[in-house]
Order: sequence, then C-alpha cells, then structure tokens
Amino acid sequence: MFISLLSDFGLDQEFVGVCKAVLLLICPGADIVDICHNSHVFDIEEGALMLKNFVKYSPVGVHLAVVDPGVGTERRGIAVETERGDILVGPDNGILTEAIDVLKFRNAVALENQQYMLHPVSYSFHGRDIFAPAAGYLAKGISLSEFGPFLAHNDLSVVQIPLPQESETEIRGIVLRVDRFGNLQTNIPAWMVPQEERIPVEIGGEIINVRHARTFGEVSPGELLLYEDSDGMVTLSQNKGDAARFLDVKKKALVVLSK
Amino acid sequence: MFISLLSDFGLDQEFVGVCKAVLLLICPGADIVDICHNSHVFDIEEGALMLKNFVKYSPVGVHLAVVDPGVGTERRGIAVETERGDILVGPDNGILTEAIDVLKFRNAVALENQQYMLHPVSYSFHGRDIFAPAAGYLAKGISLSEFGPFLAHNDLSVVQIPLPQESETEIRGIVLRVDRFGNLQTNIPAWMVPQEERIPVEIGGEIINVRHARTFGEVSPGELLLYEDSDGMVTLSQNKGDAARFLDVKKKALVVLSK
Amino acid sequence: MFISLLSDFGLDQEFVGVCKAVLLLICPGADIVDICHNSHVFDIEEGALMLKNFVKYSPVGVHLAVVDPGVGTERRGIAVETERGDILVGPDNGILTEAIDVLKFRNAVALENQQYMLHPVSYSFHGRDIFAPAAGYLAKGISLSEFGPFLAHNDLSVVQIPLPQESETEIRGIVLRVDRFGNLQTNIPAWMVPQEERIPVEIGGEIINVRHARTFGEVSPGELLLYEDSDGMVTLSQNKGDAARFLDVKKKALVVLSK
Repeated sequence: MFISLLSDFGLDQEFVGVCKAVLLLICPGADIVDICHNSHVFDIEEGALMLKNFVKYSPVGVHLAVVDPGVGTERRGIAVETERGDILVGPDNGILTEAIDVLKFRNAVALENQQYMLHPVSYSFHGRDIFAPAAGYLAKGISLSEFGPFLAHNDLSVVQIPLPQESETEIRGIVLRVDRFGNLQTNIPAWMVPQEERIPVEIGGEIINVRHARTFGEVSPGELLLYEDSDGMVTLSQNKGDAARFLDVKKKALVVLSK
Repeated sequence: MFISLLSDFGLDQEFVGVCKAVLLLICPGADIVDICHNSHVFDIEEGALMLKNFVKYSPVGVHLAVVDPGVGTERRGIAVETERGDILVGPDNGILTEAIDVLKFRNAVALENQQYMLHPVSYSFHGRDIFAPAAGYLAKGISLSEFGPFLAHNDLSVVQIPLPQESETEIRGIVLRVDRFGNLQTNIPAWMVPQEERIPVEIGGEIINVRHARTFGEVSPGELLLYEDSDGMVTLSQNKGDAARFLDVKKKALVVLSK
Repeated sequence: MFISLLSDFGLDQEFVGVCKAVLLLICPGADIVDICHNSHVFDIEEGALMLKNFVKYSPVGVHLAVVDPGVGTERRGIAVETERGDILVGPDNGILTEAIDVLKFRNAVALENQQYMLHPVSYSFHGRDIFAPAAGYLAKGISLSEFGPFLAHNDLSVVQIPLPQESETEIRGIVLRVDRFGNLQTNIPAWMVPQEERIPVEIGGEIINVRHARTFGEVSPGELLLYEDSDGMVTLSQNKGDAARFLDVKKKALVVLSK
C-alpha cells in the first residue's frame, strides 16, 4: 500500500522517522513517500496547498498530513475517504481541505477508537500516537467505520486560501509562496490575466512593467517575467536570478496586476 | 529486511544517498528508513537520543548510526545484537548506548572482517566503506560471528547523557535539545516534577513562574508552559510561539525548577 | 526496479514528492532512493559530481538528475544507456557527463515522444512532466528507442569540471566543494601531491604549512591537515573543526600546493 507523508516536523529531529517506524510496524512493507516536512511551522494553508499539488499526481493511497498547531486541544483527528479510494488522515483543521477539493469527498470519520492509537497517547505528538497509527491501520485494510463516528462533509473544518480580487482595472492578489529558486507564486490563476506582452505589476511598493511570457528563455538573464507556472498560477520570476531577493518580497506580499 | 539510518552527514551532499546505494547493492529490496541526518555535527549524545527515540517505536531491524568524530582513528566499528533481534551498527563511541539500554544487549562483535568492507577503505568515509556494508550483509542474513571477535557489553564505549540533580529545594537540569518549534526539552523526567499548577523556573538568567500544564491548549497564546513531552521529559514551550527564541535560550542551557 | 533521484529542488516544497508520485504512478513498487536535492540552485557541475559519486556505488538502475537552469528553453531532454545497463535521465546540459564517464556510454535518445510525457507539459517543471515520466516508463521496461531519435555520444552537451594545473613548482587547483563538516574538497587528485610530511598551501590569501596526513587522528584537535578523501581527491580539513569557517574560504577558492 502506498502511504504519503506531509508535516511541519522538519528534518532536524527524528520525528518523521518515528512516524515511519510506527507506520511500518503496523503495516510492514508499506511504500512510504515524503511529500514535504519543511512546511512553515503551523502553516496549515501552505501544507494544504502542498498536499493538493501532490495528490493531483499521486497514486491512490493513504495520505497523512500533520500540520497541527492545535495538538493537545479539543480539535479532533479525521480520516476522509475520497471518490477514487484514497484516505486522507490528519487533524480536522483544514489541512485536508484542498486535497478533498481535488479528490472529492466520499466519507469521513472522527478518529476516536482508542484501539488504533499508541498508548499512552502523548499530548504533543499525535503524529506518532494517533495519526501514523490510523494511517498504518487504514493502509493495512482496516475499515474506515472502525475508527469512529461518520462525519458529513460540512462537519469538517476548512482552510480558506485567500482569493484574488478583480476589478475593472486591476487584479489584486498575494504571494502564495516563495520557492527555493525565488519564484513568487501568486494566488492569481493564469487564465485571469490579460494576454498582453507586458503587464504593469505593483509589488514591494514598486510598479514594474513586467514581461508576460510563457517561459524563462523568452527573457534576458536578470529580467523579470510573469508566466503561468506548473500549478496554473501566475508566478513572477527572474530569469537566472531570484525574484524574491531581487524585489525583496516575502510570502503574503501584495501583488496588483493592471489590466 | 528493515534498515534504519541515522547520521550527521546532512542532506546537502550525496553522502546519505551513497550509503543507501551500498546497502541496496548488497541487500537488494531492503526497506530503508531515515531516522535523521541533520544531527549536529559530531554530536554523539544527540544522535544517541534520536536513535533511542526511534527504536522504541520501530520494527525489529538493522539500525545503522554514524556520528563519528573519530573516523580514521583507532576507534573500532561494532555491531550489537539486541534481545528482540535487532542489530545496531556504528562506531564504538557511545552512539548506540541509549538504544542498547532500551532494546537490551545480547551480543556484540567488532567489525574486523575485511571481506565485509568496501576496498580500498577510505580514511574519512567509514559510513560508506565499513558501516553500510556491514549493515547490508547483516540485513542479508550473514551471521554476526562472521564479522569479528565477540565483545562483552562492558567492552563497549558509552555516552553519558547528563542527569538532572535534585536537592530538597530544586531540580537542576539542562536543555537537552531545541526542536524546530522552539520547544526546550530538558533532561528532567516528568515524574520528578511536583504536581503544582505553577513552577518557578530559572532559565536564561531569569526566574519565571511557569504554568505547569498537560497541553498547549491550557494556556493562552504567547504564554509559557511546562509539560510532559512525548518522550516523558519536562519540556518548556510557548503556546503558538517559539520558547527558544522568546527566552533566547540554546541547547545545554541550565534549567532549575524550584520545588 | 531501482530509481535514484537527484535535483536542486530543495526539500522546502513538495516538488521532489510530486516527482516520486509520478514515478510510482507509472511504475508501482519502484525502489526510489534520493541522492541529494539540495545541490546549489542551477549548479550543474555540482550535481554532475554528486551523481558520479553515487553511481560509482549504486546498483544498476534508472538515475534521474534534474538540475535544469534551461527549463523551458530549447535544450532537449535525454536518456542515456550505460554499458552495464543503467539509464541516466535528465536535461542535456552536462548534468549526466560525469556519470557517463564512469559508467560508459552505450546509447542515447532525445526525449521527444509526447506519449511518455504528462500533459499539458508545463514550461517550468519538466521534472514532473517530462523527466519523471520518462524515468518511470524506462524503469517499467519501455525500450529506449520508443522515446525519440538516437543521439551519438558526442551529440551530448558536457560539463567541464575545472582541472588543476601543474607546473614545476606548484599545483594550482580550486575548492570543488565544502561539505557540512567544513571539509574543503579540491579538484586536485591525491596522486598528484608529493609524499612530503608538510606541504605549503596557499589558500584564502595565506600560505600555510599544512600537515599531509592520511587521517584526522594523526593531527591535534584544531590543526589543519591535507589528505586523500573518500573520492580520491586532496581535501583540506581541520581536526575536530570546520576548515571552511576557520580559513574563511568558500567553494571555488584558489588552492595552490607548493611542490
């Protein structure tokens, strides 16, 4: 069985390794793939987007996502079955929202059955004591209904990814993320942007007339470009450079495209 | 066969990948799990604790741990069989001590048989040339006794994790580690701490009256708390914050709890 | 089938995970090993060396290497079969040069067959849309000739790793890489260096008389040494220290050894 794993545990401690140990103890031979463990700490929105981008391309499997600022509070754990048969496992805080949107909701349960937890359940590491065991037992074939009461789709917490706002003269969005290459991915879908060769962009307090291209090779080294990235979103980059550093811009920065 | 892997090699070079290549060349199809490779450079104590935390939850397997400041010196390599049948492999410098404490010593050998090494054996990468090959052949089923002479338990080097000191009025410990969330794990076991609602804590030159809670949710955002963490140790954290940054405290800092 | 994976995608986003998802969707059950994903951004030379160091020790398999500053330009994708039967997959920019040198060229094709790509093919993530699919189908057994026209060995782009220059009185090289331990690996092969006990080394603007040793244990803590590293190259290190920090030296720094 295929199990994928996303968290904000980082790679500087053994936390991810311990979760895998638990998975393999319960479900020997599982194929485990890491999605990412360096999501910003407690950033549910970022984790939700990463999970979405992953499941769009992944085999059917159990997908475990633990970005969990509310660990130890009353927020529940959930497992959600999708139309094609995946099971998404994580805290009920919106981390699964975007993936459910893509894969479509079929069923969900609250993770309440103590039999499928590691005891004593700690107050601070539910990844190890609740979520990895649930994922392991689900991968092993234990039925969803064994884990707890069914929940309706609209019982689940959701995360709201900020949407861009369009007026007659402009599209206002934000930087959704900055990747290792300094690319500035916005929350503006590429189809929203006019087919002009250059687009005035307000970002970092400046207004820049940016080349609207399909690909890096169309602009000179050092030049900025605005293009449809591999997620279908408008991204602002610098050819052979780092747009985030060049523009001194961070995640959540305002981006305004003139029409 | 299940093989786990811990090192201080980091993830910025191909060193971990090369060790896995060696493992898979010798023992095709092995299930390899990373425990952590970002342990502080040469920090045997930290590596030993990570390995312990992992093996407490892991399936029986071969566990390879290479934090090895003495590579190229006369320190020997060892393989240690545990009561339940794991084999721990690494340099004889204490990196295995804590895991042996948990899994219990059954047998050990010095890794001397040249037949199970990659030649020429380099002076600086025994992970690749001695330890990964040993782990691979052990995972493949080669008997421990083939690798070299047996060693008694008390022949092995040990690492001493500093213990807390208790007096009538206080418990003196240190910060054992700081994780990605800024949690300050101490070397004080949770059972040592009085069941008071607030505990005066001396840390970073200050004395703070810290809430003694079970979980983050019991305190306000930004508030400090002291609780039993998932390893059973006293940890000092800041709800929705980063205690290490907030208190400007690092690993090894003194922590004194008043009774 | 064994698939290895090298990139400069970093581990802070889901990019590597997505490539693995694609691989496993196409070739379920593949054994995937990470070589490294933290190669310096766009550093083809560094990636090429890492790949070489890996394949020297790896089982026969499909090796996927994506360090791709020219993504979205006319540079083609290639798959290269080696004498022993590996298949190297990546952009035709030199990233595969060093590995081909080690494993020996047998055949190569340009990746042109749209059937083995994910559609729509993005302009910025060929790792996901072209290279991972190619690697997956190749691992699954699809014949090289299915992917596109054959290429001759000298049709392929190459990367030139800078070579040291030797005169009667000195060997001039550069720092090829700095690892996590601060070791300064040079581009000077160890066999080039005279068998003297001390060697005058010019580095970072200073001339230092460095101990020529086989291993760290031969010098005192804090002392510099020059030795043959595990790749057969001259490396400059500080026993129990960090030579890069100690000497304030970075990758590409000039290193001159006097004879």
